[in-house]
Amino acid sequence: MSQHAVNGASCRGKVLTLETINPRVKQVEYAVRGPISQRAMQLEKELKQGIKKPFTEVIRANIGDAHAMGQKPITFLRQVMALCSYPDLLEDDKFPEDAKKRAKRILDACGGRSIGAYSASQGIECIRQDVASYIEKRDFGISSNADNIYLSTGASDAIVTILKLLVSGEGHNRTGVMISIPQYPLYSAALAELAAVQINYYLDEDNCWSLDVNELRRALSEARQHCNPRVLCIINPGNPTGQVQSRQCIEDVIRFAKEEHLFLMADEVYQDNVYAKGCKFHSFKKVLFEMGPEYSDIVELASFHSTSKCYMGECGFRGGYMEVINMDPEVKAQLTKLVSVRLCSPVCGQALLDLVVNPPQPDEPSYTKFMKERMAVLSDLAVKANLTERIFNTVPGITCNPVQGAMYTFPRIALPQKAIDKAKEEGHAPDMYYCVRLLEEEGICLVPGSGFGQREGTFHFRMTILPPTEKLKVVLQKIGEFHLRFTEEFL
Amino acid sequence: MSQHAVNGASCRGKVLTLETINPRVKQVEYAVRGPISQRAMQLEKELKQGIKKPFTEVIRANIGDAHAMGQKPITFLRQVMALCSYPDLLEDDKFPEDAKKRAKRILDACGGRSIGAYSASQGIECIRQDVASYIEKRDFGISSNADNIYLSTGASDAIVTILKLLVSGEGHNRTGVMISIPQYPLYSAALAELAAVQINYYLDEDNCWSLDVNELRRALSEARQHCNPRVLCIINPGNPTGQVQSRQCIEDVIRFAKEEHLFLMADEVYQDNVYAKGCKFHSFKKVLFEMGPEYSDIVELASFHSTSKCYMGECGFRGGYMEVINMDPEVKAQLTKLVSVRLCSPVCGQALLDLVVNPPQPDEPSYTKFMKERMAVLSDLAVKANLTERIFNTVPGITCNPVQGAMYTFPRIALPQKAIDKAKEEGHAPDMYYCVRLLEEEGICLVPGSGFGQREGTFHFRMTILPPTEKLKVVLQKIGEFHLRFTEEFL
Repeated sequence: MSQHAVNGASCRGKVLTLETINPRVKQVEYAVRGPISQRAMQLEKELKQGIKKPFTEVIRANIGDAHAMGQKPITFLRQVMALCSYPDLLEDDKFPEDAKKRAKRILDACGGRSIGAYSASQGIECIRQDVASYIEKRDFGISSNADNIYLSTGASDAIVTILKLLVSGEGHNRTGVMISIPQYPLYSAALAELAAVQINYYLDEDNCWSLDVNELRRALSEARQHCNPRVLCIINPGNPTGQVQSRQCIEDVIRFAKEEHLFLMADEVYQDNVYAKGCKFHSFKKVLFEMGPEYSDIVELASFHSTSKCYMGECGFRGGYMEVINMDPEVKAQLTKLVSVRLCSPVCGQALLDLVVNPPQPDEPSYTKFMKERMAVLSDLAVKANLTERIFNTVPGITCNPVQGAMYTFPRIALPQKAIDKAKEEGHAPDMYYCVRLLEEEGICLVPGSGFGQREGTFHFRMTILPPTEKLKVVLQKIGEFHLRFTEEFL
Repeated sequence: MSQHAVNGASCRGKVLTLETINPRVKQVEYAVRGPISQRAMQLEKELKQGIKKPFTEVIRANIGDAHAMGQKPITFLRQVMALCSYPDLLEDDKFPEDAKKRAKRILDACGGRSIGAYSASQGIECIRQDVASYIEKRDFGISSNADNIYLSTGASDAIVTILKLLVSGEGHNRTGVMISIPQYPLYSAALAELAAVQINYYLDEDNCWSLDVNELRRALSEARQHCNPRVLCIINPGNPTGQVQSRQCIEDVIRFAKEEHLFLMADEVYQDNVYAKGCKFHSFKKVLFEMGPEYSDIVELASFHSTSKCYMGECGFRGGYMEVINMDPEVKAQLTKLVSVRLCSPVCGQALLDLVVNPPQPDEPSYTKFMKERMAVLSDLAVKANLTERIFNTVPGITCNPVQGAMYTFPRIALPQKAIDKAKEEGHAPDMYYCVRLLEEEGICLVPGSGFGQREGTFHFRMTILPPTEKLKVVLQKIGEFHLRFTEEFL
């Protein structure tokens, strides 16, 4: 028996404890599914058990989960998924011919004609070709190459993979990554896990959460004192802030990235979610190529998309892709190797993505219904975006920018000093305390602004605009009433 | 303009190059999808283009991808997946009642009754309960708690997640992880990425690739000189080596883990793939609890399972789960937080897993067909396991252990010194050179033993036993002929 055995294992306690765990894991935070969301789940269970609460249901406005909020799946997408799952249905007259055609094409591209086979690690080739065609069409003819497309498990997976490639160096030489504040906390979580240096640049709340290149310069020059900034991340349309970047601003950012030798990561998963008049989605890829070869031959860009948002809202399928531009071929080989370790992204998600990028065409039988369903979702979201801004801005102490795009609002809330003190007493960030109280009293689950980052001394929450219109009205009204009650309590 | 801009970005080259990439990523290797597999893909394309080759098709025996090798999906599983994808089919008379019942139950547990909603990060609760019931039944009543079950994106995802938690310390204090040699290269790849110390213990080829605790002791005591060994990984049934561990050996391993204060990771994805007479699958969980509270209250264990192997072979769905035993509650909270950053595993994979752990029962309409299909796959594999061993052992220079379980054979090949020299000339490992030649000459794609690790001076390859029986016979014969030809060439 070894020395260690003689010492007796039982006295030593567990191998894996909070003291011995990977310290980087401890640093990770992800507010969207943090303690508030867990408490919401518990409250739902208690309601089911018949325990009385001041509300009859929990409304989860904390996460961009369209179907959970009652949005119906698009018929065409699900018909093809059923056909791919159980190809005997290809003989069934009830399915339209274009759905069958898509299913056959996908199955033909699968090993053994089964979506149960592994795909190539980069993704099924004909789907990558369809993605490339989709991008070309979206970007008015700017060419896209299927070799630059990597299918992924949602967008999160691809974002983390690219960050993983970019992190290196130690001490002052450690990779720094610029992210917006407020940010989507996947970024801060991934940076914590990779022990990269997070460089905050602040969006301008007074200008509709716009991005100012001078602020990028400030953040970069400060960061150069203590790390090696190599990456600039942009979310457009914005999460959690709902702004849509102007073409001019994108151009400025690209120029800045080139000047400062930064790798650009463009999170464009809300590219179909643009509501405000005068706003339009411009992809970084398109603007980059419109700026001419002086930029488009040089600036390295990865752009991310997903099946989870836009009109589909198919989060559970975990489908997504990224396009990489100007990536060194040797680096691409490393990327392909790295993704191969996980074998492939879910084939159902790949198949669903194919339908998103290759939807029914005007001469196909499913076209009319598909377009009707798609438009219904998007116009509904536009109505709700407007409604949200309008109602919030009637509440004294709540200030809400227009929801130009995406599916969130990030209003600012004025909190009395006594509420701030009370929160500190309870060991909470002030807006966390606010959100906890709202959840306990009204059954409405939001995420506090502190989970996304915000300017010191300001407080916010993120709310999705996804609840059905009538329910959203009630939610907005209840939040308004709560806000007044809460504010009065601490005056 | 900043100093950096003045220097001119274009002269500086790319941000991300092989020199500036994360050095840990460069260390990652994954032979199963390495250069051989990429060359196979290229050869397939060339064949399609009509380019003449010495063969008419490429046979991919490099990866455990059952459907790609012609295995048909199990009807019941796919019927339920179609119903979940397109719930209008619930009205269709063609689907059996038990399939509809399963689909309804899964949909009821989804947000908005849609598999397009995110699930809880740990996985859908009723599916975790079904997994727990399955484990209890498998382990003859030893209790399992749904709170200890985490649904995952295949088994790989969960394995990497647990390793991630366990890695800490620097220098001599860095976490060491014991893995078998030969190993499944997910392990070495994950350890490279996490910069953990890989501790090799060798399986005993002369004893049917069995595991000897003395060898564990040797490896551990050497490793203690330079790192902090905290984890012991076991693959049972074995990949790539196809052995099935005896109950006694599992007991010895558990005792060793307790004595040496090691966290146990049991990769049990081939638990239904046992063919050899006298061999039986014993889960680590069951043996641990049979050893009494002195062990079962203390030893920390994570066990992994997947939808990709066994009789289902549903690799593309990326379904899987892990059960954690004796995990510190604070660590579990960290684990839950960590998986929440990726939101959830693919819901289609979760649903499919539910059917695997909750298959049709004897009183249900799909039972007979389900059992017939299941048995057909497993008995077919048993025939092929036997065939493979028998035929390989008739070839002078090939020595093949019985394929007791899993779906691979890892025969040893004797290579003439001149072949070894030639390989070195070409910059290949000798068995890589052998496999490249086999691929180019016969269109058969295998993975060289060097991709899994092997004792210095020995050479092997891994081959799946998945091709249909008649094709497998041809493959085995062709490899035999190639081996003789290759050996003669270098005598």
